[in-house]
Amino acid sequence: MDRLLGCVEELRASRDVKELLRGMAGTAFNGRSLGEALEILEEMASTCELRILALAGAVVPAGLRGVVREAIRRGLFNVVVSTGANVTHDLLMAFGGGHYRLRRIGLEDETLRRSGFSRVYDVAVDVRGFQLLERWLREVLDSMEDGEYSTYSFLRRVGLKLNDEGCLLRQAAISGCDVVVPAFYDSIIGVQVWSLTQTRRLRVVESLDLDYMVGLQFDAKKRNAKTGILIVGGGTPKNFALQSALVADKPFDYAVQITVDPPHYGGLSGATLEEAVSWSKLSEEAKHCTVYCDFTIALPLLLSALTR
Amino acid sequence: MDRLLGCVEELRASRDVKELLRGMAGTAFNGRSLGEALEILEEMASTCELRILALAGAVVPAGLRGVVREAIRRGLFNVVVSTGANVTHDLLMAFGGGHYRLRRIGLEDETLRRSGFSRVYDVAVDVRGFQLLERWLREVLDSMEDGEYSTYSFLRRVGLKLNDEGCLLRQAAISGCDVVVPAFYDSIIGVQVWSLTQTRRLRVVESLDLDYMVGLQFDAKKRNAKTGILIVGGGTPKNFALQSALVADKPFDYAVQITVDPPHYGGLSGATLEEAVSWSKLSEEAKHCTVYCDFTIALPLLLSALTR
Amino acid sequence: MDRLLGCVEELRASRDVKELLRGMAGTAFNGRSLGEALEILEEMASTCELRILALAGAVVPAGLRGVVREAIRRGLFNVVVSTGANVTHDLLMAFGGGHYRLRRIGLEDETLRRSGFSRVYDVAVDVRGFQLLERWLREVLDSMEDGEYSTYSFLRRVGLKLNDEGCLLRQAAISGCDVVVPAFYDSIIGVQVWSLTQTRRLRVVESLDLDYMVGLQFDAKKRNAKTGILIVGGGTPKNFALQSALVADKPFDYAVQITVDPPHYGGLSGATLEEAVSWSKLSEEAKHCTVYCDFTIALPLLLSALTR
Amino acid sequence: MDRLLGCVEELRASRDVKELLRGMAGTAFNGRSLGEALEILEEMASTCELRILALAGAVVPAGLRGVVREAIRRGLFNVVVSTGANVTHDLLMAFGGGHYRLRRIGLEDETLRRSGFSRVYDVAVDVRGFQLLERWLREVLDSMEDGEYSTYSFLRRVGLKLNDEGCLLRQAAISGCDVVVPAFYDSIIGVQVWSLTQTRRLRVVESLDLDYMVGLQFDAKKRNAKTGILIVGGGTPKNFALQSALVADKPFDYAVQITVDPPHYGGLSGATLEEAVSWSKLSEEAKHCTVYCDFTIALPLLLSALTR
Repeated sequence: MDRLLGCVEELRASRDVKELLRGMAGTAFNGRSLGEALEILEEMASTCELRILALAGAVVPAGLRGVVREAIRRGLFNVVVSTGANVTHDLLMAFGGGHYRLRRIGLEDETLRRSGFSRVYDVAVDVRGFQLLERWLREVLDSMEDGEYSTYSFLRRVGLKLNDEGCLLRQAAISGCDVVVPAFYDSIIGVQVWSLTQTRRLRVVESLDLDYMVGLQFDAKKRNAKTGILIVGGGTPKNFALQSALVADKPFDYAVQITVDPPHYGGLSGATLEEAVSWSKLSEEAKHCTVYCDFTIALPLLLSALTR
Repeated sequence: MDRLLGCVEELRASRDVKELLRGMAGTAFNGRSLGEALEILEEMASTCELRILALAGAVVPAGLRGVVREAIRRGLFNVVVSTGANVTHDLLMAFGGGHYRLRRIGLEDETLRRSGFSRVYDVAVDVRGFQLLERWLREVLDSMEDGEYSTYSFLRRVGLKLNDEGCLLRQAAISGCDVVVPAFYDSIIGVQVWSLTQTRRLRVVESLDLDYMVGLQFDAKKRNAKTGILIVGGGTPKNFALQSALVADKPFDYAVQITVDPPHYGGLSGATLEEAVSWSKLSEEAKHCTVYCDFTIALPLLLSALTR
Repeated sequence: MDRLLGCVEELRASRDVKELLRGMAGTAFNGRSLGEALEILEEMASTCELRILALAGAVVPAGLRGVVREAIRRGLFNVVVSTGANVTHDLLMAFGGGHYRLRRIGLEDETLRRSGFSRVYDVAVDVRGFQLLERWLREVLDSMEDGEYSTYSFLRRVGLKLNDEGCLLRQAAISGCDVVVPAFYDSIIGVQVWSLTQTRRLRVVESLDLDYMVGLQFDAKKRNAKTGILIVGGGTPKNFALQSALVADKPFDYAVQITVDPPHYGGLSGATLEEAVSWSKLSEEAKHCTVYCDFTIALPLLLSALTR
Repeated sequence: MDRLLGCVEELRASRDVKELLRGMAGTAFNGRSLGEALEILEEMASTCELRILALAGAVVPAGLRGVVREAIRRGLFNVVVSTGANVTHDLLMAFGGGHYRLRRIGLEDETLRRSGFSRVYDVAVDVRGFQLLERWLREVLDSMEDGEYSTYSFLRRVGLKLNDEGCLLRQAAISGCDVVVPAFYDSIIGVQVWSLTQTRRLRVVESLDLDYMVGLQFDAKKRNAKTGILIVGGGTPKNFALQSALVADKPFDYAVQITVDPPHYGGLSGATLEEAVSWSKLSEEAKHCTVYCDFTIALPLLLSALTR
């Protein structure tokens, strides 16, 4: 039977993350997927010229920007496509906007609000940082030339101006890893920039990122280079990145998806990577897998195994 | 005990959708939520001046544009915030881009692709319509004046030019219901417009929609008018609409959310409406509820009970 | 392309449940599944001699025993395989054990407990009924002859002794529909019976139900009769019913599953009906479908369309 | 604000599983829960006299019996409450019943069946082992005295007779850890025993396990000993174990739940540990948490951190 791949291997407990994930590749369900994901990401790291990280989900508020920063520093990815929320929280942290763990019971949201906090499930965000952020953004905009900026070129400048070494944006800028935010104005950072650029001749224009993403794919196509993507969550980052492959007719060669959305509700976030083949977003021969898991568990595991 | 609301009422079977949903309001879990959602939407329809429908999820490919169209025709909503995908599929249908039900077994995506179809779970989309759409879009753009357009004003013009009475966009345009697509370039319609406007002095600029949405909220605030929202799915439509309430400091008074995403993965799509109170997106006194259900089941039920 | 079944049909809103579900069969995702489920259940009702309802999930606390009772009264099912919890709550309601809807916020479980309530998500159960139930059970046991009883024969006697016309058990007993509870002692009713039979020569023995279920399948096999099953939730009722088909080598001909569990975690409750074919639990030619939906929404819809 | 626990800590990548999980305890969502679960299980291991492992989900077919076996060997748990399926697969493996990883695409279940395999999501089970198992069970039964056995005492004898050191049942028997299967006859092992005991004066009687479980709780109560439980999945193992605490009025002091079922569908498997407080199944002061994660990922991580 050609459908049989080999025995399910009995897993050995191990204190070593990489060893444990390797063992899990021989098991079943999402443990198996997690182990396979590691193999695919390793191969992607060594064979793909274009290595995209699509980042949705509250990665930064959850305390994971450090592991993502390290991955960027080591060159695991050279492009990040993100929600504006992750960028917002990244900058917020640079300006005293603390993120606190909340007791899960008795979360009275009106009380939180009056105390100056907004909630992201079990994280409370100190909103005072937003004002400091806006003040600093004003300075950054003052230092920039008039004109139209794609989100990635705007965020590169922002990253270079940051002092906080902990910021994802700063590490990305230093590492030459561009950060694209396709739905820029669907975020607090976008709202602040929109507000501050009302009276300027400077604007962030999202369509310019479409040029950029499609350009990256065409370059890869010209050089006959391999491309790969790690999709965390779904949403606009997933769609925008996959869409660029369709437009350039350069389906991805490697793809790993970490999601908790099942496919049977028809949504894009839960759409399978197999389905992406029908849209020419993924190659029929692509190595791919989906890990159904909270990214706060899967991402640290994978990135620890990849960067240490 | 003030936490007790009343007996769970034994539901009577009924062939009448409205009667059945009213009965379900007295039961538990999501049957109860569905019944409560109907009450909230009825009250919203009669008390809210600003009535937003945030539409994510593959609503149009799933065959539901008719029920949404009817809801718009009857004035249930006066603003729609949508993904570009729904607009794309709406226009696609006007240009021969058929949508077909697929057998769920044996979905070979490479075969589908080669036969000219792309898949959305159990729906196959005939992609030839995309070419016809692009040709027509070219004509529409030719007929438009140069300048910058928000997505809603662009789509209003598109809607008025359509002949197909079945199109959501057309009904919206006729009914004076604006359709906002915050992540316009994250969709095939966006890619086509981007491609066709490369050499024109005409551009669709998403930030202009931020002006618009926030303006709507400020107007409502000035008039001390009530506002309400029905959120189908999550993603950018949900965030963009709720964000406008935060920016104008005009938290929603009514909100119903139809989703299948649980809150415990921290994502925006599954974020509870209670949490939105901490962000000033929803009023503490707001009437709201969340129905955890596939929208292809919940939306027809609610809209049938509301419009017939 | 033989995989294409027909156009996705645009759904028309309708106040009539049956008409709406018929229309939904032409749409997609779980709306489509719900419509298909109705067709399958209609065919099952008219062609299957053995018609099983596997009932897991808090159906009775949620206020749905009435619609299930009606379905039994009309002969839609002639065997019910249930969790002990549903039977417990059914009897509890006969003895003043009220079920109350709870406010979803501020559910302080210790306070509930001290006030004499136990919680099932958003339902509070008044636990005083348990004492009255135990007293009555004592009388019922007093009236029964010594010996060993399968759960179905024990519950038949219990049903016949009940006065409350609202009880599922009573309707089942009157209608000659047997109620099997494979994990009888995994429930409060089981604990009470266990406690009360410590000093009696009367015992409920679950293995006798295995004889019974397998016997039903062998009878159907002998008569070359069709068999069908509606699975609500998963758990022991699903497994026990499907297992009897395997043991008798009489795979089901019709199956509908209402669940919210996806298959990719490998659990039995989310296992697909396709997978059941590999276990000879379902025939390869069986008509089947799965509706991913809260049963408090799907069950009333289906049973209303079937019984009115 | 007493609801704030401390800053979200930025996670450091680490190759050491224990160090990584400790770091995750300072993050958010289920990464945080996983880290907290480790702390709770460590405390439970050192303070609880009664330490229960409730095991649902296809743990054995997924290749995890080794890590569970190790945990039992080290005394992490002294009672296991399991589904019959896990016991069945454990014994199956001793008799040549191989478990194979399947390609996830093109799983044609009828073909699998004809080739002698049954499927558990992405695992194919070679069913020939069932016949060998039945033959061996016959021998075991021949060697046992007539009488009635609880499932745990039956399975202890089975475990002692096994030669395969890899078997969970054998390790449990050697370690004095009893394995209770409340829904014994809802499994293939139960069906085989039922079949083989038709003509014997030997029977496995599930109600005797109720005596046993409740007895364990009463003992702990008498000694004023702490009790703890790790719940993997839900179903009968979860309910039966928690129920015994209710019956003896000895609510658990420690509880960790690994599940993927959300609470809002009202089911027992997704019921929160908070809700269990209202049923006196968990103490109000209990240390507890729920990790929403596939057990094939969470269990190896926790058990590796606990046993190495």
